[in-house]
Amino acid sequence: MEATAQEVDATVRAAHAARASLADRAVRSAFLRTAAEQLEAAKDGLVETADAETALGPVRLTGELARTCFQLRAFADIVDEGAFLDVIINHPDDTATPPIPDLRRYKVPLGVVAVYSASNFPFAFSVAGGDTASALAAGCPVVVKAHPDHPALSELVAKVLRRAAAAHGIPEGVVGLVHGFEAGVELVKHPLVAAAGFTGSVRGGRALFDAAAARPTPIPFHGELGSLNPVVVTEAAAAERAEAIGSGLAGSMTLGVGQFCVKPGLVLAPNGAAGDRLLKSLTDAVSDTDAGVLLDHRMRDNFIAGVAERAELPEVESPVTPGAGGEHTVSAGFLTVSADKLAEEGAYDLLLEECFGPVTVVARYEDEDEVRSVLSRLPGNLTATVHLSSEEAAGEGRGAELLAELTPLAGRVLVNGWPTGVAVAPAQHHGGPYPATTSTSTSVGGTAIERWMRPVVYQGAPEALLPPELRDDNPLGLPRRYDGRLER
Amino acid sequence: MEATAQEVDATVRAAHAARASLADRAVRSAFLRTAAEQLEAAKDGLVETADAETALGPVRLTGELARTCFQLRAFADIVDEGAFLDVIINHPDDTATPPIPDLRRYKVPLGVVAVYSASNFPFAFSVAGGDTASALAAGCPVVVKAHPDHPALSELVAKVLRRAAAAHGIPEGVVGLVHGFEAGVELVKHPLVAAAGFTGSVRGGRALFDAAAARPTPIPFHGELGSLNPVVVTEAAAAERAEAIGSGLAGSMTLGVGQFCVKPGLVLAPNGAAGDRLLKSLTDAVSDTDAGVLLDHRMRDNFIAGVAERAELPEVESPVTPGAGGEHTVSAGFLTVSADKLAEEGAYDLLLEECFGPVTVVARYEDEDEVRSVLSRLPGNLTATVHLSSEEAAGEGRGAELLAELTPLAGRVLVNGWPTGVAVAPAQHHGGPYPATTSTSTSVGGTAIERWMRPVVYQGAPEALLPPELRDDNPLGLPRRYDGRLER
Repeated sequence: MEATAQEVDATVRAAHAARASLADRAVRSAFLRTAAEQLEAAKDGLVETADAETALGPVRLTGELARTCFQLRAFADIVDEGAFLDVIINHPDDTATPPIPDLRRYKVPLGVVAVYSASNFPFAFSVAGGDTASALAAGCPVVVKAHPDHPALSELVAKVLRRAAAAHGIPEGVVGLVHGFEAGVELVKHPLVAAAGFTGSVRGGRALFDAAAARPTPIPFHGELGSLNPVVVTEAAAAERAEAIGSGLAGSMTLGVGQFCVKPGLVLAPNGAAGDRLLKSLTDAVSDTDAGVLLDHRMRDNFIAGVAERAELPEVESPVTPGAGGEHTVSAGFLTVSADKLAEEGAYDLLLEECFGPVTVVARYEDEDEVRSVLSRLPGNLTATVHLSSEEAAGEGRGAELLAELTPLAGRVLVNGWPTGVAVAPAQHHGGPYPATTSTSTSVGGTAIERWMRPVVYQGAPEALLPPELRDDNPLGLPRRYDGRLER
Repeated sequence: MEATAQEVDATVRAAHAARASLADRAVRSAFLRTAAEQLEAAKDGLVETADAETALGPVRLTGELARTCFQLRAFADIVDEGAFLDVIINHPDDTATPPIPDLRRYKVPLGVVAVYSASNFPFAFSVAGGDTASALAAGCPVVVKAHPDHPALSELVAKVLRRAAAAHGIPEGVVGLVHGFEAGVELVKHPLVAAAGFTGSVRGGRALFDAAAARPTPIPFHGELGSLNPVVVTEAAAAERAEAIGSGLAGSMTLGVGQFCVKPGLVLAPNGAAGDRLLKSLTDAVSDTDAGVLLDHRMRDNFIAGVAERAELPEVESPVTPGAGGEHTVSAGFLTVSADKLAEEGAYDLLLEECFGPVTVVARYEDEDEVRSVLSRLPGNLTATVHLSSEEAAGEGRGAELLAELTPLAGRVLVNGWPTGVAVAPAQHHGGPYPATTSTSTSVGGTAIERWMRPVVYQGAPEALLPPELRDDNPLGLPRRYDGRLER
């Protein structure tokens, strides 16, 4: 089933040949909407197959499919609106230095996009996921590297997308699918592949990033690799609602058996009575959590080994020991450590690395300086969260300061919430400083489409030859910047 | 004078320490305007020093300084307007799947930017050039690697920028300057450097790009490396105005002694009488061009060797032989070749590589298929140009088709113009597929600021803690996307 180099080549060439069929925005948005409809129509079979391959369970999978369809439609709306084309028109201006000629700029699709599926989101970050939806919306054909955890589902979903394409006269090659590790490496090196999107581990993602950068013609590689997702609980927040925070944390870190890239992996909680209450509440809630099944045996092995290695560090405690549950399951738990252990480079740095699965590390701090020291040592993150008291949230104390301290660490900063659950919205940003992502882009939300486009400007082109998007009379009614004015 | 690793480190740290002083947009724009004023005030001394170091001559240098100041003020205007912050606000929406919480996104500066100066633009692409202006506008301190062709000018310009900074209470470290090849390599590897901008050769730029990608934490590297800038002259255009095209081409390819990255380096002209007239006109105009001085001896050597190597290819002719002029000068010229020689991989590929200096290659074609074959073999370009007849420009014939064929090749596509002269304008795009640039960004024009920023979104943050840019009542009057509506 693994694709040979020749098969990868043929798949990429078929995708490349389908480019022109995506040129018309109306066709693209209709295709995306049909894809959403047909995925919904095929729901039962898709969820059944996904459940058989991933053990994520029908409830989660049904929800994820709904999210996937919502996302396809959201990108269809974006395509129809057209603001993403980023039209800028300047008429000649001889008063400028040097003089400005007639310049009309918008964005064009890059070409074939390679999409690397994630194990933990068989729908939303796989064949019909955010990378594919945004690439097709941008006008780019895709070739998806299927994740080995759900090959049959990948085939089924690709088939639905191709049927939707055919319904709009788009060649089926517009959505290619390949299986196999080597095929994935071939894909990122293929001369006709113009960009890549990836969701997965730091190791795998970095290897592909390196391959993309080492090509004779380097290509943009948008990888989401890993994140610790720190949480800071202020003294006052703990004093105000320790129990709610403890149980909220338990819910977030165990959601989906801890297999979300935005799982809170490090929590800074105060020493003292309020922090103790938080830990008591966390202990109770995590103890009550059923053992769960991880996506595959490799993950289960990594989780058990990763937790054991961390728990063995001196003065690290396990109020609820995470690790092997039954033969196939794992049980949730958490570790505690004194925050000062994390303030300097050394053996405890392991606690600052992501551990995939239902575990978090609670670092108890003595004062604000310790919080600051630990934060200063963190790598980039997808999210950073702060829990504040009502007074701090209202502007008293150092709420704004903490927000400013967390901002350099992450792409999404939350107040009094939990990072799990990534909404599909125009303002969403799912990305962050490396290793959260390998670029400054987002893989969720409206602006994810920007990853697959590049600007081009026409100078002195007569109206008769300009694409309609760039004509003075704006026949398509696009939002644009016209001689400095923002027009809608 | 070459900076040691310790000096590079100290310079980067000083720049990093100056970050907070750029947080206020009003301070940034005032700083940029003061910098423009003070550069103008220092004009005579700056031009004199530049002329002594570069031999570009006071006329060109005075114009380039004016352009540089215009550019600083253009970015000041962009900072004041604030659209570049790309504010998107979404209020909670429970009807979405999953539900959308309160999300408020804008862009924040990346941190210290490394700027690599160009030899051929001692003002506009050097210490106070486009990379520096756009980085400071974004809120990023810069450390400039001076070009060895104009070290004294680099010091003078840096001094002016620092004085302008000090006038607004910004630490002088906000603009660092280092000299030396090794210092440049240290710079791109420094952990506190967050991004880099480069203008120069493919070899040097690719080495730095590779170093940026190989860092433990890779950083964005926006390099403008090289471009052939193809020109297509249709049969009908040649028939209509062969003489004007020939003399226009001569002016563009010899402007600045051919030392512009947008110099037309390959011209597809038809066989037959009209093409012959074009060549006659080109011959006359180029023959009348005075010998000129290249930026340094290395460039002169490369030009003479590069031209000789190309001219030696079988069946390549030199109607006006380019090469050594006097002891320090070079004379302009051009080569001709039959276009079918370029249609397949081989020895003639050398003619598809940029040759810096006053030379161009005219490839004579028999029919449209030959034009298409040659275009399909070109690497990425900053510009691509087509000369059309009046009828073709009005929509008759294959004008639109040619425009569509040139679009994949370049970032700027010109009709009936010449690529030299890159206007500073909101719609400008100075970039293109590799090796024109190493990213999809531009180094000239309003959107150059986007290179130095990353998005961040706040989720559930109370109004009291939000930066003013993201508050509902929009106290700063920013253009934004508010619950789907574009507001200005």
